[in-house]
Amino acid sequence: MSAWVLPDHIADVLPSEARHIEELRRELLDTARGYGYELVMPPMLEHLESLLTGTGEALDLQTFKLVDQLSGRMLGLRADTTPQVARIDAHLLNRQGVTRLCYCGPVLHTRPDRPHATREPLQFGAEIYGHAGLEADLEALLLALDCLKATRVEPLTVDMADARIVRSLLAGVGVAGERMARVHAALATKDAPELAALTAEFPSAAREGLLALVNLYGDAKVLDEAARVLPDSALLQQALQHLRWISGHVGGARLRFDLADLRGYAYYSGMRFGIYTPGASDALVRGGRYDEVGAVFGRNRPAVGFSLDVRELVGVAAKRPLKAAIRAPWLDAGPDAVELRGAIAQLRGQGETVVCVLPGHESEVDEFHCDRELARDAAGRWAVRGC
Amino acid sequence: MSAWVLPDHIADVLPSEARHIEELRRELLDTARGYGYELVMPPMLEHLESLLTGTGEALDLQTFKLVDQLSGRMLGLRADTTPQVARIDAHLLNRQGVTRLCYCGPVLHTRPDRPHATREPLQFGAEIYGHAGLEADLEALLLALDCLKATRVEPLTVDMADARIVRSLLAGVGVAGERMARVHAALATKDAPELAALTAEFPSAAREGLLALVNLYGDAKVLDEAARVLPDSALLQQALQHLRWISGHVGGARLRFDLADLRGYAYYSGMRFGIYTPGASDALVRGGRYDEVGAVFGRNRPAVGFSLDVRELVGVAAKRPLKAAIRAPWLDAGPDAVELRGAIAQLRGQGETVVCVLPGHESEVDEFHCDRELARDAAGRWAVRGC
Repeated sequence: MSAWVLPDHIADVLPSEARHIEELRRELLDTARGYGYELVMPPMLEHLESLLTGTGEALDLQTFKLVDQLSGRMLGLRADTTPQVARIDAHLLNRQGVTRLCYCGPVLHTRPDRPHATREPLQFGAEIYGHAGLEADLEALLLALDCLKATRVEPLTVDMADARIVRSLLAGVGVAGERMARVHAALATKDAPELAALTAEFPSAAREGLLALVNLYGDAKVLDEAARVLPDSALLQQALQHLRWISGHVGGARLRFDLADLRGYAYYSGMRFGIYTPGASDALVRGGRYDEVGAVFGRNRPAVGFSLDVRELVGVAAKRPLKAAIRAPWLDAGPDAVELRGAIAQLRGQGETVVCVLPGHESEVDEFHCDRELARDAAGRWAVRGC
Repeated sequence: MSAWVLPDHIADVLPSEARHIEELRRELLDTARGYGYELVMPPMLEHLESLLTGTGEALDLQTFKLVDQLSGRMLGLRADTTPQVARIDAHLLNRQGVTRLCYCGPVLHTRPDRPHATREPLQFGAEIYGHAGLEADLEALLLALDCLKATRVEPLTVDMADARIVRSLLAGVGVAGERMARVHAALATKDAPELAALTAEFPSAAREGLLALVNLYGDAKVLDEAARVLPDSALLQQALQHLRWISGHVGGARLRFDLADLRGYAYYSGMRFGIYTPGASDALVRGGRYDEVGAVFGRNRPAVGFSLDVRELVGVAAKRPLKAAIRAPWLDAGPDAVELRGAIAQLRGQGETVVCVLPGHESEVDEFHCDRELARDAAGRWAVRGC
């Protein structure tokens, strides 16, 4: 096999896309900073137990493992940054009040999430710790929407759900493990016959509630319908009320509800959302409340946040025009060369790209699109002109 | 052991340093772009043989290895980005003319390079392919100096050497392996007695030349001295002439020569340089010409480049003032809330950081330094005032 063949689902990012990714990255970080989210950079590698504590089996299977020669201990390459940021909030910053953090860096997956997914997403995300109230849920969702708007991705649809709804229906139903996983799968695929078979021996309220969930998706009327048909409980009422409140404060995007949606069920403890745009095969952004995430690090702080893959985003964000460059000749020595170098340095200081044509390469096509050149004008001064 | 203990030589980057690193990162990439260097993003993981071809044993020992579950093949985590960029130039871009590329991303090392070094440097670098002439060597060095100046690191000292000088002395001397490694080590530490012992049976011209090298460091006079005392050869003359030409074109930094310096000897094929500043224990930047680097990928193109660790740089770059933020109150609903949200969005659009104080957290100290607040003025409009 040739030395230049990359592993499956691993790719180089070449210049035109890399430039676009870098622009998106800056816009995302600047948007988060505008909301007061502080940047952190957790490491690529950690002890395996730190990366996986409290995160469930899915992340374990996704995580590359290797041995640390220095300690002989098992390390993991991060497959998700959120547990790391929770560790930073809980242990390193150890603040009492509200902490807002954001991050942007590669994560690695042993297997692609979807058939054509990369195994090396560039994960950007933001998290708010220390506020149990709905204002934090709302801020996280509004920031996610603003991030997408900053990168000019439109139109946007927000799908909202709440992990407490299924939880309220299953409270007191003694089912776990394999059977529960199949119930979740049937809900996720809205497979009513399968769900009916799986829940045949459940208490009738739970069974009817789960079967009703399969049809509870659509616009805000779904919330009223859910209050009418699902078995009443304090947890259910709370979840529906929270969805109503948050959705009442969100503008600039279409809202949908899918109360059977269980994605990230093991992770989220309350409201969760996905943001979609036409052209992307899956949600661009996933987020929600996960109050338990810092518990293993000794501080069970309220937490809401979201993340996205910048490499996925670049596929749907509007392409930017290539910033054009200026060609400059090469002069070796003499007063001419000194003047030329001064002119080039000045243009670069103004943010221009100035490509010096090296001797013998005058006839090559510029890879950087040069629409101007630096040449002597009639008065003998170095000046920029079209070419 | 607690779940929050990180592996040795691995660390989180917390907010104040992360913000500074992000600023340096942008300045470095923007400086390279000003010269026409196109950004590429090679993957963190590759087949081991692609990462290690032609790079020597040192990189092999530094590279973390793991098995790809998809293919059963051995993968490596990149410990250096240069071989990847050479692969991109040789195979993916496959251009005939000059190609300028730059990159910035994490690399991982199994063991720290130095006692207090991180095992996760953030490597920034730039490479120019396709021009064998000295103009490329000069451009790489000038870009490296401009990158450091853009990040306000001063004063700078450039140490220059050339891999061809030792090579010219050893031409025809039949020594390899262990013995050669000890000769290199003795040269690097300028250990004349050890060198004398090791070269006792060498031809006398080679032996005297190697012993003379130990004292050939200092300012430009070293080049004249070398021409006088070293055994004459075309390779030596070429190396000295190239060092003279390049050093004659560099301004804004102190220049030194150390002709016994062999760092990266296996890698470099011509001129090489290190850039130093007071306060940094080692070179901030290392670079030079390595014309052989793309050969294993099927195209043996001329190449010159350099790299640096942004996390090392942040330790010596002048600290930036914290950008201050604006506090804003939280309003839930009503026309007041709509106006407030509009004022906040406008300020954020202007690049300001506006932190909304969530209900119940009014008395907390801001982690973002807020020097202003958004409040109603006498006319009842939302306005920014000092606080």
